[in-house]
Amino acid sequence: MTSEIDVKKLVRMLGEQARTAYCQLADASPEQKNAALLAAAQEIRAQSKQIIAANNTDMSAAENAGLASALLDRLKLKPESVEAMAKNLEDIASFPDPVGKLLAEWERPNGLRIQRVSVPLGVIGIIYESRPNVTADAGGLCLKSGNAVILRGGSDSLSSSQAIIECLHTGLKSAGLPVDAIQLVPTRDRQAVGEMLTMTGIIDVIVPRGGKSLTERILKESRIPTIQHLDGNCHTYIHKSADAQMAKEVLLNAKMRRTGICGATESLLIDFDAVDKFLPELIETLITAGCEVRGDEIVQKFDSRITPASEEDWATEYLDATLSIKTVKDVSEAIEHINRYGSHHTDAIIAEDVAAAAVFLNRVDSAIVLHNASTQFADGGEFGMGGEIGISTGRLHARGPVGIEQLTTYKYLLHGSGQTRPV
Amino acid sequence: MTSEIDVKKLVRMLGEQARTAYCQLADASPEQKNAALLAAAQEIRAQSKQIIAANNTDMSAAENAGLASALLDRLKLKPESVEAMAKNLEDIASFPDPVGKLLAEWERPNGLRIQRVSVPLGVIGIIYESRPNVTADAGGLCLKSGNAVILRGGSDSLSSSQAIIECLHTGLKSAGLPVDAIQLVPTRDRQAVGEMLTMTGIIDVIVPRGGKSLTERILKESRIPTIQHLDGNCHTYIHKSADAQMAKEVLLNAKMRRTGICGATESLLIDFDAVDKFLPELIETLITAGCEVRGDEIVQKFDSRITPASEEDWATEYLDATLSIKTVKDVSEAIEHINRYGSHHTDAIIAEDVAAAAVFLNRVDSAIVLHNASTQFADGGEFGMGGEIGISTGRLHARGPVGIEQLTTYKYLLHGSGQTRPV
Repeated sequence: MTSEIDVKKLVRMLGEQARTAYCQLADASPEQKNAALLAAAQEIRAQSKQIIAANNTDMSAAENAGLASALLDRLKLKPESVEAMAKNLEDIASFPDPVGKLLAEWERPNGLRIQRVSVPLGVIGIIYESRPNVTADAGGLCLKSGNAVILRGGSDSLSSSQAIIECLHTGLKSAGLPVDAIQLVPTRDRQAVGEMLTMTGIIDVIVPRGGKSLTERILKESRIPTIQHLDGNCHTYIHKSADAQMAKEVLLNAKMRRTGICGATESLLIDFDAVDKFLPELIETLITAGCEVRGDEIVQKFDSRITPASEEDWATEYLDATLSIKTVKDVSEAIEHINRYGSHHTDAIIAEDVAAAAVFLNRVDSAIVLHNASTQFADGGEFGMGGEIGISTGRLHARGPVGIEQLTTYKYLLHGSGQTRPV
Repeated sequence: MTSEIDVKKLVRMLGEQARTAYCQLADASPEQKNAALLAAAQEIRAQSKQIIAANNTDMSAAENAGLASALLDRLKLKPESVEAMAKNLEDIASFPDPVGKLLAEWERPNGLRIQRVSVPLGVIGIIYESRPNVTADAGGLCLKSGNAVILRGGSDSLSSSQAIIECLHTGLKSAGLPVDAIQLVPTRDRQAVGEMLTMTGIIDVIVPRGGKSLTERILKESRIPTIQHLDGNCHTYIHKSADAQMAKEVLLNAKMRRTGICGATESLLIDFDAVDKFLPELIETLITAGCEVRGDEIVQKFDSRITPASEEDWATEYLDATLSIKTVKDVSEAIEHINRYGSHHTDAIIAEDVAAAAVFLNRVDSAIVLHNASTQFADGGEFGMGGEIGISTGRLHARGPVGIEQLTTYKYLLHGSGQTRPV
């Protein structure tokens, strides 16, 4: 067990190394970064057995420690997951470089030419839980966008992450880039997270990626700006003008495709005028698919298997095969409910009435608002961004999927010919 | 004196009112917002005498309280300053509406059409010191960008701000917009600031606007994301290829035009190879203009009136007629010094050598980097943004001048035809 002082020193040292690497990355060409990503992908394939062996070490320790089976599932790396990591790094390499883009340009009456140009965010600290593939995915996204990153993975996955990080380092070295551009905190000591959160001026952004309690702790403690989402209490609203078949298919996908992801629908809102038309078949389909249904008084009348939904249900992200259903008067009541109980993440309307859809899209105050599509599209890959580091429900900087473009900021370049500012 | 509980309740109530107003603003047309701004400007002109009378009340109280003369200066409203507030609101009205802009649009292979559209940030809390014109300027910028704002001005300027806010309310009312879109915290109690900083979920962004100690306190205490700059330790670097006349004019302007603003140059870096050519005349000009000059050992040799600059000087924002001068080997050493001691605010190179300038612009890690122009151009108005709420040296969201465009965020609108996400 390392002492508190040692951990503090260690993490600060990683920070200083990351800042140096970040400055060196400023000179890296897009080709160099892509070469590093491709070489890392190749090395991950070559080291597949070693990565899985390291993962087995983590798995045994976790089993002995009595980790819950859902957590063991997240920790487990299969050969396909290793291949997916390699493939993902290649995908990231194939994207246009997000750094050095001319975002805007204009000239002032005094002849000053002003350019807004994209630049990396700086040093990013990513704090995540068990899933070891984040090590490769997040490392790759940060490198592509010119950032240095300090990765603090779940302590359960340390051996797996170390095996992965070695491959990333091989890639960086082969492209002539500093290995400190992607660093892993090499200790299971929990002090390391607390220390990272105090390192203003060294770490520029903290990205928590994990369950709600991890994110809440980080939001509470961090002295560094964060990009995150706390929860995803997403809604699908079925307007009375909806196509019945589409409503059924989209809702089933939004709720049941995967129940544990942040874009899964947790509440169905449905127009009072449409309950007779839509609800019986919807409820049958959901229950047949294994979904527990909770509803308001009107909804309960449709099926004896429906349990009452309480005020608490409207605010709950089940992350499970459970759906709450509420009837609403109209699109305005649906919007009001979503803006009140939702988490400003992802919400959808199913409607043929384009005017109703337009009002919904305009007034629902969420990062992602959909018309006639599943809320499960809330994902950087599905947006065509080449992966994401997470989904942001914050209002500053990035909103929605955080891909390589969102991992940049900008600076202003002013080109003059001796201009001085008049008094 | 109000009790702690009363202040807490009061500020929370302002918050709830602001959230309601923010939702109502979502339906306001650009024409309505502009009508409110123009009517407010007209009312400020009409109420000029009343505003100045209220300001006299503040001034008398401040004089009796023994406020320093620099602070009294900032508090004072002259007829010209009242006219400037009115004019500024008219300028803001004349700008294109920053809300509802289509920022990007693309279609996915599955037919989903994705739009990124600009939307207001939400409810903004602005905490500022004496200068009462901020009440009109910040209120106007927030309204134009569709945000509701809670203004917490300096307690010295409360009467002035109240007179100004009444004019803004007249404008809002005449345009049919909620007066709670622009609210002033109506108490001098300092508890109010502390309470605002805890109101996550109610206030979306905090903007501190004032001296370093105010900003430091807010950065330390705020549980809400902030947009701010802490200081502006800005540099002008004279490259050996610089035009002597331009170097002199630009430097003098950068340092002496106004010494108290955050874009004023605080340190001059100069190529060792160029000191003989440039320094004697530069030093003479600066000292003649009333500037105190501190320098490294090489610089000190040029004039007996130059005092030694210490390590501390390199990191100091004087906000006064003082300049530190350091010789550097080349552009690389200049960049390194700036990235180390600067505050990532605004830095300039004076050079005829375009290659050297390009390296400087690329590698200096500041919000604003200039070639052959004065650092005092660090200002939203000078950028053509129609005013600013401040300058940000943070890396997330806005960097550099924070104008109406930077007071918006975005959301994604996804237009589908029944798409579901494949398993």
